[in-house]
Amino acid sequence: MNFQNLTDQIKKKKSFLCVGLDTDINLIPEFLFDFKDPVFEFNRQIIDATEDLCVAYKPNSAFYESRGVKGWESLIQTWQHLPKDCLSIIDAKRGDIGNTSSMYAKAFFDEEASGMSFDAITIAPYMGSDSVKPFLSFEDKWVILLALTSNGGGKDFQYLKSEQGYLYESVISKAHEWADSSKLMFVVGATRGEEFQNIRKHAPDNFILVPGVGAQGGNLQDVCKYGINQHCGLLVNSSRSIIYASKGNDFAEKAREEALKIQKEMVIELEKIGLI
Amino acid sequence: MNFQNLTDQIKKKKSFLCVGLDTDINLIPEFLFDFKDPVFEFNRQIIDATEDLCVAYKPNSAFYESRGVKGWESLIQTWQHLPKDCLSIIDAKRGDIGNTSSMYAKAFFDEEASGMSFDAITIAPYMGSDSVKPFLSFEDKWVILLALTSNGGGKDFQYLKSEQGYLYESVISKAHEWADSSKLMFVVGATRGEEFQNIRKHAPDNFILVPGVGAQGGNLQDVCKYGINQHCGLLVNSSRSIIYASKGNDFAEKAREEALKIQKEMVIELEKIGLI
Repeated sequence: MNFQNLTDQIKKKKSFLCVGLDTDINLIPEFLFDFKDPVFEFNRQIIDATEDLCVAYKPNSAFYESRGVKGWESLIQTWQHLPKDCLSIIDAKRGDIGNTSSMYAKAFFDEEASGMSFDAITIAPYMGSDSVKPFLSFEDKWVILLALTSNGGGKDFQYLKSEQGYLYESVISKAHEWADSSKLMFVVGATRGEEFQNIRKHAPDNFILVPGVGAQGGNLQDVCKYGINQHCGLLVNSSRSIIYASKGNDFAEKAREEALKIQKEMVIELEKIGLI
Repeated sequence: MNFQNLTDQIKKKKSFLCVGLDTDINLIPEFLFDFKDPVFEFNRQIIDATEDLCVAYKPNSAFYESRGVKGWESLIQTWQHLPKDCLSIIDAKRGDIGNTSSMYAKAFFDEEASGMSFDAITIAPYMGSDSVKPFLSFEDKWVILLALTSNGGGKDFQYLKSEQGYLYESVISKAHEWADSSKLMFVVGATRGEEFQNIRKHAPDNFILVPGVGAQGGNLQDVCKYGINQHCGLLVNSSRSIIYASKGNDFAEKAREEALKIQKEMVIELEKIGLI
């Protein structure tokens, strides 16, 4: 999915919502255990209930890996079920030397090799250019590079200041040497709405994936106030607050209600910038 | 495996070699395809041929993930075959917020959940403390944190200088707040032998995992000159130069010859410090 396709979907669906599939087998309703793959069935119902309200899905790889082979099978099945008009993001936060990153690219971008071909992957920047470049050779696929994260430990290193500014600013600046906004997004945590003003100075055109709205405490209005650009340029992720909106048998219905609530707020934000 | 066990093994085997199992299905001998799981069979033969010469094995997760479910099965089988007197390291370079890192800990440290329970995992530091802490609650298991890596892109950010010194120095200093040398190692690339002098100022007691000897151009004597401490404190990894020493049917035998060559050099280094 390329930049234009994604922007078109945002206009069409009046949404820049990404639904995070952080599916924990210990948190899903009992009745799903009657299905062969309860985690996939949970995801399937969530996807079917929300696909007209969001433009992206983001399975969190850790939640699948934690179940070994079975989890990997659930992840592949989930990928297969993702609607083609949504950006599919694997939240994997990989990052290694070039030949290893090529293998990670096979794992997540090459269906023939691994059974999966996501549109985008989250990458950790610590090891620099060779962590990223192997993923950039795939047409219409994206790298989503960690810049400023919303977790407590995000402050440990991301705000270290060198001559080039904060570490997260250096990451954004350096990454512009590797790819333009047609293949490169950044992760910026939503608990720091006002930080988006500065992020947009460094990355005016890139899409920004914003986790942390909902369960992690972020606020959509704050994010949009400083983070939205003329083509939207935001994908706002919500995981727990949508997928666990209800722990009962009505989980999919409640997930839809929650997604709809966010999507309605997004309509207002998209109208403000005249995109819809 | 705890600090004392590891040091005992180093003395007993007169080796601080780690064999990296970066097993690429496209680089293994033809005849292995007669076996049900060619990648596992390759690893099995490598392990059986080298286990008296090394103290650790390090499968590189990417190479298994690249093959989807089949690769994950090969990884589990490989883990099951690893000798109990060797430190088992999963080279996964994970790093995420707390609840996600807990899931990664299940994936690699919790046999009941995932089928695997490695002794140690490599972790990327970008997201700070919560990336690391969930792994530290497992008894006798280790976090091996990326500090200074030997790849080209390693220079992109790791040498950024703040008031606290280079980024990699800040990583080492901060990590000391999370764990002591009984549970925490660092990754330091071997192409920068003289850098070990500085690393040892910041981490005098921690084990250091040194990739990059062999195929990546590092030199054992240089590493030991500055990096060895009174209880050795080094795990020197070699992957490609051992496991692909021959591409023929004698691959295991040649791998052993290559491992033996390195182990003999290690005897000299261990004698120098009087550990054996």
